[in-house]
Amino acid sequence: MRPQGVIRHKRDGRELSRDEIAYFVRGVVGGAWADYQASALLMAVFLNGMTEAEQQALTEEMLRSGELLDFSDLPLPKADKHSTGGVGDKTSLILAPLAAACGVAVPMVSGRGLGHTGGTLDKLEAIPGYRVRLELPEFRRVLGRVGFAMMGQTSTIAPADRKIYALRDATETVECVPLIVASIMSKKLAAGLDALVLDVKTGTGAFMRDEARSRELARALVRTGNRFGVRTEALITDMNQPLGEAVGHGLEVAECVRVMRGEVTDATRPVRDLSVELAARMVALGGAAASLEEARGGVTRALESGAALELFRRNVEAQGGDPRVCDEPGRLLDLTLREVRVESPRAGYVAGVDAAEIGRALAGIGGGRARIEDEVDAAVGYLARAKIGDAVKAGDALGLLLCRDGAGGEAAAARIAAAYEVGAERRAPAPELIREVITQ
Amino acid sequence: MRPQGVIRHKRDGRELSRDEIAYFVRGVVGGAWADYQASALLMAVFLNGMTEAEQQALTEEMLRSGELLDFSDLPLPKADKHSTGGVGDKTSLILAPLAAACGVAVPMVSGRGLGHTGGTLDKLEAIPGYRVRLELPEFRRVLGRVGFAMMGQTSTIAPADRKIYALRDATETVECVPLIVASIMSKKLAAGLDALVLDVKTGTGAFMRDEARSRELARALVRTGNRFGVRTEALITDMNQPLGEAVGHGLEVAECVRVMRGEVTDATRPVRDLSVELAARMVALGGAAASLEEARGGVTRALESGAALELFRRNVEAQGGDPRVCDEPGRLLDLTLREVRVESPRAGYVAGVDAAEIGRALAGIGGGRARIEDEVDAAVGYLARAKIGDAVKAGDALGLLLCRDGAGGEAAAARIAAAYEVGAERRAPAPELIREVITQ
Repeated sequence: MRPQGVIRHKRDGRELSRDEIAYFVRGVVGGAWADYQASALLMAVFLNGMTEAEQQALTEEMLRSGELLDFSDLPLPKADKHSTGGVGDKTSLILAPLAAACGVAVPMVSGRGLGHTGGTLDKLEAIPGYRVRLELPEFRRVLGRVGFAMMGQTSTIAPADRKIYALRDATETVECVPLIVASIMSKKLAAGLDALVLDVKTGTGAFMRDEARSRELARALVRTGNRFGVRTEALITDMNQPLGEAVGHGLEVAECVRVMRGEVTDATRPVRDLSVELAARMVALGGAAASLEEARGGVTRALESGAALELFRRNVEAQGGDPRVCDEPGRLLDLTLREVRVESPRAGYVAGVDAAEIGRALAGIGGGRARIEDEVDAAVGYLARAKIGDAVKAGDALGLLLCRDGAGGEAAAARIAAAYEVGAERRAPAPELIREVITQ
Repeated sequence: MRPQGVIRHKRDGRELSRDEIAYFVRGVVGGAWADYQASALLMAVFLNGMTEAEQQALTEEMLRSGELLDFSDLPLPKADKHSTGGVGDKTSLILAPLAAACGVAVPMVSGRGLGHTGGTLDKLEAIPGYRVRLELPEFRRVLGRVGFAMMGQTSTIAPADRKIYALRDATETVECVPLIVASIMSKKLAAGLDALVLDVKTGTGAFMRDEARSRELARALVRTGNRFGVRTEALITDMNQPLGEAVGHGLEVAECVRVMRGEVTDATRPVRDLSVELAARMVALGGAAASLEEARGGVTRALESGAALELFRRNVEAQGGDPRVCDEPGRLLDLTLREVRVESPRAGYVAGVDAAEIGRALAGIGGGRARIEDEVDAAVGYLARAKIGDAVKAGDALGLLLCRDGAGGEAAAARIAAAYEVGAERRAPAPELIREVITQ
C-alpha cells in the first residue's frame, strides 16, 4: 500500500477500507506518511466526507495509536465531560468536584486553549503552583484520594491525534464532523470511562456556529461513544455570548470559586446551572444515582453544602496549588492590571455578541493563544457584564477589560465593543442555555 | 495574509485573488508556506477547480518565480513543442532538427521520465557522452550554431513548478487541468518562444485517457499560451498504443536515427508522420513558412535529404555525444541483453493495448523510474511489433523485451502480454493518429 493510493481513493469520493485508514493513522505516527500527504488526505476528507464506517474506523485506529488508561481498580463509576469549546466556558472546574462529591470518579484529561477559546489546563495554571503535568501514577493517586484529577494529554494517549490535529489546525480542516469526532473520541475513549457527557456549543463563540451542524456533530459523537461501550449523551448549549461573566484564565477560576462558595449573580448563574446539569448527567449516566432527578438533587446539595468546594480545595492541594484561592478568589487577580471600560456607543438593548471576536481580542493582548506554542498571560481578561436582552444607555459599561500597560488595551476594547450589537428595540428573549439533549 | 486564509477560501469554493495566488507561489518557494499547507491547497484546487482568471494568475506567478530566457539576439523565430507524455513518445529528437533545418530555432528545455512515461533527457543520455546539463551560455551557443539545443530544466526556471510538481506527484493532485496548465506553461513561457505546439496525448498511455478531458486541457493550454503572447496550437494525438515500435531509451534513439535515415517501417511510420506534422506546425506558426502546406513540404524535404540527420549529428557533437550513433544506430543497443518474446496467447486480432502498463512493466525492470531519484537503465526496452488491428496467431510475437539477466524479465513479459487484448474479430480500424487540431 502507498499513501498515494489512499489519497486517490478519498479524492475520488470512494469509501476507504479499514486497512487504508489503519495505514494512514500508523503512517502518520510512524513516518510512512509525509505531512504533506497526510494534509492532502485531510483536505480530501474535509471536501468529500466520510461514511459512518470510515469515521468509526478512524476513531478506533487513532485510539489504538496510543495507551489505554484503566482505572478499573477504583470501585467507582468513571465519568467525564468534554466541551467542543467556547468563550468563558469554565464548567469543568465546578462539575468535576460536583460529580466526585456524588460518587463518580472523574479522570479528566484536558487541553489548552487555542484561537478564541480557553483551555482547562491554562485556567488551572492560573492558580499559583498548580501542576497539570502529572505522571500517570500521581494522576491515579489524586483521582483515588480526591475523586477527581486533572491533567494534560500525555504523549502516550492517542499520539496520532496530536499529529493530525496540528496538521488540521494549519490547513483549515478543523471544522469537519468525522475528523472532530475521531479527535475527541479517540482521546476520551482512551481514558477508561463508563460514562461521557458532551457539551456541544452552538453560536457565535462556538467552532460550529450553526445549530444544525452542532446537532449533526452531537449525534455522531453520541453514536460513536455508545458504539465503543461508553454510555454517552450530549447537550447542545448556547454559545452566543460568553458563558457567565469572566473570560480569561485567572478571572474564570475566581468565578468558579465564587459559584462554589454560593456567590452567584445574574451574570454567573448560567455557569452554575450548566455545571449542575452536566454534573448531574455524569452522575446519572455513571449509575451513581437512580435517576437524573435524584442526581440533580445530589449535585445541588453538594454545591450548596460546600462539599464541592471542599473537594476542589483538596484537589488544588494535591496538585500543588495554593488552596487559599478557595477562600479568597481575589488572590487570582493581578492588581497592577489596568481596567478599560468597554462602553455602549448608544442606548438600546444588547441584541447579539460575536463571542469569538471577544476571545480573539483577548488573545491579541496575551490572554489567549494564536499558536499552540504561545505563552498565555493568566491575569489578562474581560468581564462581560451586559448580556443579550439587557437594556443599556449610551456610555454604559458593556464590560471591563483587564490588560497590561502598553499592550494595546484600547484597541482590544474597541474591538470588543464592536463585537456587540446594540439595537433600538428588545428582540427575541435571551437564548435558551440548554437547547437540546441528544441521547442517541 | 496567512496560508490558512487562502486555503479556507479555496476549500469553500471561492475564487482566489491575484494577491492570494502570488502569496501561495512565493510562499512555496520562500518557505512562508509549509509543504503540508501547499498540499492541502492543491487538493482543494483539485476538488474545487480554478476559474480561468485563477489559472492565468497561477501560470504567471509561477513563470515569474524564476528567470526568463531571452534569445531575441538570435535573428530567427523561436519555437518549441511540448508533449503531455506517453509511451514510446520520441518525436522531440526528430522534430527539433527538422524545424531547425527549416529556419526555426528550437531552444528545447525538456524533462525526465516518471512512472510509465519516458523523458527526452533520459533518451538523449542513452547516447554515449551526451550532456544535457548545459549552462545557459553553452545552451545559447549550441542553439545559435546548430539551430536547436536540448537541456534539462535549470534551477532558475520556474522554481515554483519544481516544488509544486513534486508535491502534486506525492499527493495525487497531478491530473488537474489548471495545475497542469500552470506547470507546463510556466516553464514553456519562460523559454522566450514565439511559437509553441502542444502534443496532447489521449488514450491508454496518456495521463488523460479520456478524449473530452484531453480536449479541455488542450484548449486551456492554447488559450493560456496565446494570452501570454506566444502563438500556440495543440494536436490531440492517439496514445492507445506505444508510438512507433521502440519503448526504452536506447531503442527509441535508434528508432529516431533510423527514421531520419529514411529507414521507415509500418511500425515506425507514425513516428515519422507525427514528427513531420509537429515540426511543420512549429515552422508555420513561427512564421518561417508562408503556409502550413509550404512548411510540410519543407520539413519533408529536410527529412528526405538527410538535412535533419546532419543537424542531429551536429547537435550530438556539440553536446558531447558520440556522433557515430548517426551512422550505426545499432551502437545504442547492448548485445549482452537477453531477449524475451512477448507472445500472443491466442489467434485473433489486436483489439487494444494498455500502453501505460507496458511503461510500468519496463520501469519495473529498470527501464523507467518509479521515483524521480531512481537511475534508469538506458538499454532495457521493448519493441512493440504488433499494432492495433493486426492479425496474430497463437504464439506469435506481439513484441520483444530486452532485459538484464535475473532482473525479472519473464514476469515483465507476462505483464506486457496481459496488457494486450487479442479478440476473435477485427474491431474498428486502428485509431487515427491525429485526432483534432486545437487552434484557440
